Amino acid sequence: MKTIHAILLSLFLIPGAMAQEIQDSIFIRKIYDDALTQSPAYENLRSLCKDVGARITGSAEAEMAIYWGKKLLESYAFDTVYLQEIKVPHWERGNKESAWIVDESGNISKLDIIALGGSIGTNGVLEGEIVGVQGLDELKQLGEAALKDKVVFFNRPFDQKMINTFRAYGTCVDQRWGGAEEASKYGAKAVIIRSLAQQDDDHPHTGSMAYKMDRPIPAAAMSTNNANLLTEWLAKGKVILKMEMDCRFFADMISYNVIAESRGKDEKVITFGGHLDSWDVGEGAHDDGAGIIHSIEALRILKELDYKPNHKLRCVLFMNEENGNFGGKGYAQWCIDNKEEHICALESDRGGFLPLGFDVVGSNDQLKLVQSFKPLLADYRLYNFEKGYGGVDIGPLRKFYPNMLQLGLNPSSQRYFDFHHAESDVFENVNKRELELGGAAMATMVYLMDKYYK
Amino acid sequence: MKTIHAILLSLFLIPGAMAQEIQDSIFIRKIYDDALTQSPAYENLRSLCKDVGARITGSAEAEMAIYWGKKLLESYAFDTVYLQEIKVPHWERGNKESAWIVDESGNISKLDIIALGGSIGTNGVLEGEIVGVQGLDELKQLGEAALKDKVVFFNRPFDQKMINTFRAYGTCVDQRWGGAEEASKYGAKAVIIRSLAQQDDDHPHTGSMAYKMDRPIPAAAMSTNNANLLTEWLAKGKVILKMEMDCRFFADMISYNVIAESRGKDEKVITFGGHLDSWDVGEGAHDDGAGIIHSIEALRILKELDYKPNHKLRCVLFMNEENGNFGGKGYAQWCIDNKEEHICALESDRGGFLPLGFDVVGSNDQLKLVQSFKPLLADYRLYNFEKGYGGVDIGPLRKFYPNMLQLGLNPSSQRYFDFHHAESDVFENVNKRELELGGAAMATMVYLMDKYYK
Repeated sequence: MKTIHAILLSLFLIPGAMAQEIQDSIFIRKIYDDALTQSPAYENLRSLCKDVGARITGSAEAEMAIYWGKKLLESYAFDTVYLQEIKVPHWERGNKESAWIVDESGNISKLDIIALGGSIGTNGVLEGEIVGVQGLDELKQLGEAALKDKVVFFNRPFDQKMINTFRAYGTCVDQRWGGAEEASKYGAKAVIIRSLAQQDDDHPHTGSMAYKMDRPIPAAAMSTNNANLLTEWLAKGKVILKMEMDCRFFADMISYNVIAESRGKDEKVITFGGHLDSWDVGEGAHDDGAGIIHSIEALRILKELDYKPNHKLRCVLFMNEENGNFGGKGYAQWCIDNKEEHICALESDRGGFLPLGFDVVGSNDQLKLVQSFKPLLADYRLYNFEKGYGGVDIGPLRKFYPNMLQLGLNPSSQRYFDFHHAESDVFENVNKRELELGGAAMATMVYLMDKYYK
Repeated sequence: MKTIHAILLSLFLIPGAMAQEIQDSIFIRKIYDDALTQSPAYENLRSLCKDVGARITGSAEAEMAIYWGKKLLESYAFDTVYLQEIKVPHWERGNKESAWIVDESGNISKLDIIALGGSIGTNGVLEGEIVGVQGLDELKQLGEAALKDKVVFFNRPFDQKMINTFRAYGTCVDQRWGGAEEASKYGAKAVIIRSLAQQDDDHPHTGSMAYKMDRPIPAAAMSTNNANLLTEWLAKGKVILKMEMDCRFFADMISYNVIAESRGKDEKVITFGGHLDSWDVGEGAHDDGAGIIHSIEALRILKELDYKPNHKLRCVLFMNEENGNFGGKGYAQWCIDNKEEHICALESDRGGFLPLGFDVVGSNDQLKLVQSFKPLLADYRLYNFEKGYGGVDIGPLRKFYPNMLQLGLNPSSQRYFDFHHAESDVFENVNKRELELGGAAMATMVYLMDKYYK
């Protein structure tokens, strides 16, 4: 790290390095000019969303997305394009997904529900009285007496005060991920959760959950509007849920990460990517079509501008981020098995919104290095470089490369949870300029890392 | 200004002032909590867009918007709510607005056009050969020989490289504002312009234009997709435009700015506002429903939090920004006629998008003052405090108060020109969180100005 600081210090202090800074500034301007005037980013996202569509791991569309990605990467004539085999889970939603509620007077209301990914089905129509709770803690207070054979309704909403909406998500997601396993311990027969969504609307939002398979129970999400309605009904008296779902797991399958590389002067690797799979509703436009496009753009633009990398630039379209992360885990294992040396990794998996900076996972010295680039990036409205989160796909790399610097592209989070894991996550909700600026931001940071980080 | 700097210096250096900074930090957090959890901002914007709708100066809807604004402001029980009489122009689009093009083989294509605000009508179907140009400069080169009795097509697009899209707009807007007057000097019979829009789409975007009335000619905008089509046709040969419009001016009218005030310890005024009028297409949601809501929110939140102002806080809903600015001019004249002392003015007229900071109009010392607040605002992602533009409505104040500090709320501009002056500027294209954050940003800056600027 000392060498890096010496380089960076000289970069801004001595005349030769001033020339260097000007050169960087000109090159970054070229990256943005390319991204904003002649980029195929938006058309590529349209194609992924409309020609392929939703692409959950194990589906025919996921396989199609692998072909789509390989073909697109090959069209840019990078040095190498290849598939990396991984084993993935295969869960399907099935055809049945219905629910309604009945109050003591016999009033009924249909609910817009969606099975959580990994849930078992109901094996016919399940029926049970609903007990509303605000989170996992409440289960213990209520105990088996209150919960046995009941349907637990996890209803804790987003804390709207949080400026970073990922933090708000973080304070609710335990209800989705672990709610069914916890409720099952007290004898509950099913769980339904308030969707992890920013707004009150009619879209149910799915997402992953998990339990030990000794006593699994069905788990689904309902729209926030439905959750508000159900809250009102519960305040008035007993409410019964009736629900039918036939989602289930199939045998594990073989699938692939899709990889493209530009060779560098040495064999050290810089990984950057997003995830190619999506949930099976919407079109995976923001999550994570945008990240796929940002990552491809980074490699494409640097090649287009005839940049000669110092290190191996590797763009990875990860499979199975949403329900297992076997793409990310398999990739990390493959890297260490091949005794690769890795410099750093970048991920884009927070949507195609206005980029504001990068989250940094690393030491204080690594953070300082990233922050030293601020003067070059202020013109492009990239200001936010603080410690935070890299990404699910690149996370497993740190098991084998514990000192690795990781960077997560950090776009504005204000609109993300309007679309996340819902039917509204479609191409039309991605803005062309915002998407292009994200691609330019990724290309810029890959360039700076390749040039200055050793 | 020396006193201010002394205050600000002490604010960050001495223990008593550290307490002050903590107090400010807590108060700003309260502003954001209010805006993000219990604000009527989004519902108020819905009402302005849906219950009133498009509200061009002189229309029945503009009058309705005045009532709407007065009633809403009165509902918050501010110290004073009143109307300020102004004289305004009255232009109407009429019922006819059609155009099509014919090539030499007789192929025809309809164009999506919209009259520019202030244009005369065509008095029946106008017909003329189209001459395409990239800007006003080209007219002189072509001269009367090439332009007499022709229809001039101004086709210079946005420069997509500009990160701040208002700058891109600024490099094209002369075609709309002055194109007709200039083309008329060379004998042209009409002008049509490429819409001042960011994207290639099917929406024609209107906007203001002006000419001396000695030889006015009709002027309209077409969608960017139409402009691309017409460019292709012109590359192949002669193209004739046929166009009919019956827009026209009526006699000037009486209208009103709507004003609400919270009294302060002294009579010095801080003005903040947006404009109540809009164009007559869409719903004026971003332009400038959002600015109206931001400004009302600033006054509402400070009252809600029981803040006791040092100065008179005056929220102004300006009439007639779009086609004349007689609201802004009339307000400035009224202030100086009443010998008012003014401290500073703030405006929000760049849409309801993610706020990034404020543009500053003022001296270097005034800029430094504003930038000294950065540490208080970084948690809210407000970073951009540079010299720039305040706003059309508050601009005339500087004629009488030349040293006045002015601040323009600066939201992300990336999506603004997808909606600007077009039928797509509707409530559904405003995000609730982004709108609320804008209101909080305005309230915060009004608070800081009231507290620290003398």
